[in-house]
Amino acid sequence: MKPKSQNIQWQESDVDRADRERRNGHRGVTVWLTGLSGSGKSTLARRLEAALFERGCEVYVLDGDNMRYGLNRDLGFSPEDRAENIRRVGEVARLLTNFGAIVITAFISPYRADRDMTRGLMPAGDFLEGYVDCSLEVCEERDPKGLYKKARRGELKDFTGISAPYEAPESPELVIRTERRTPAECVGQILEYLEAGGYLGATADVGAGSGH
Amino acid sequence: MKPKSQNIQWQESDVDRADRERRNGHRGVTVWLTGLSGSGKSTLARRLEAALFERGCEVYVLDGDNMRYGLNRDLGFSPEDRAENIRRVGEVARLLTNFGAIVITAFISPYRADRDMTRGLMPAGDFLEGYVDCSLEVCEERDPKGLYKKARRGELKDFTGISAPYEAPESPELVIRTERRTPAECVGQILEYLEAGGYLGATADVGAGSGH
Repeated sequence: MKPKSQNIQWQESDVDRADRERRNGHRGVTVWLTGLSGSGKSTLARRLEAALFERGCEVYVLDGDNMRYGLNRDLGFSPEDRAENIRRVGEVARLLTNFGAIVITAFISPYRADRDMTRGLMPAGDFLEGYVDCSLEVCEERDPKGLYKKARRGELKDFTGISAPYEAPESPELVIRTERRTPAECVGQILEYLEAGGYLGATADVGAGSGH
Repeated sequence: MKPKSQNIQWQESDVDRADRERRNGHRGVTVWLTGLSGSGKSTLARRLEAALFERGCEVYVLDGDNMRYGLNRDLGFSPEDRAENIRRVGEVARLLTNFGAIVITAFISPYRADRDMTRGLMPAGDFLEGYVDCSLEVCEERDPKGLYKKARRGELKDFTGISAPYEAPESPELVIRTERRTPAECVGQILEYLEAGGYLGATADVGAGSGH
């Protein structure tokens, strides 16, 4: 380990996004997964996270597990609270993207206006909307948490797809059809998109001529 | 680059905090700086960030610049809003600490109850309170943003130290006296604390016996 004084003097300016992206070897970006309950968002998010982590990426998943019981614990399921939930997730995603990380979000996020608001927080290219496309029939058949059954029995109000609308994206960057494909195939599709878009190969480009 | 299928199969379980800490080579931790306006929190946060980044750490600063104009843009300066501001910063700090990152926060955070609430969000050892100790006289003399002058003229209400209380920590992990020491000396003090506490040397310990 170098002497402390050298360490402190070496980085003369604040650490900025470009410094972080150079070290990470990839760009900061938010992959915003949206789709019905049971469409496969969480599974895809976790598999994609694992694949990117294995490649050495700084990658973080934001989902109900770490947001609803933390930052958003004060929010319920009214339309206003749902919008605020998405706004906060969007702000944290923006923060982490600005820190040069790859952020994967897994929320139903049924309203176009909320998703567009989040897109509007970030510069073009920082926000990729991934529509996890799966028919209501198949989602209801999968019903991993038994929520559709409860919703059909009227025990859950305003349940997306049953008693509340899902507004599918009109021009998402990615449409990920999970009905007849394995999670690995779907993850492969997203990785290919990220590669083709230059998100995963920042090292060579950014590092050239930087001198370190 | 390895074939995708290998990448996907390699990491068989979800990426957890231990995986991230192993790769980062350090523990996740929040260094919560508290102190009067002008005491040096932001300067210390940025210098500490640069020093830790240079050592290869995953380190992020949360401060007014990236929180007040983002996640917390809906909040004002009423007591309730101040408390909610600190709660949200604490939740984001917890999230990132759980991602294995070193988080440095730079907020006046004048109320003991708010800071203790944040401490209570995290397991012991994840939250380090750093009291940035500088007399009101010196802070007011520095007055980098001209805020004390405005407060003295009555143009700013509820200004900490002038017209609103600052409750100094009773048993902070760190007391960082900035009056007669350079920023580099203060950063050195924090780095020594982190080193002595084993926060910066997770690689050898955690990696032993892990097989990769």
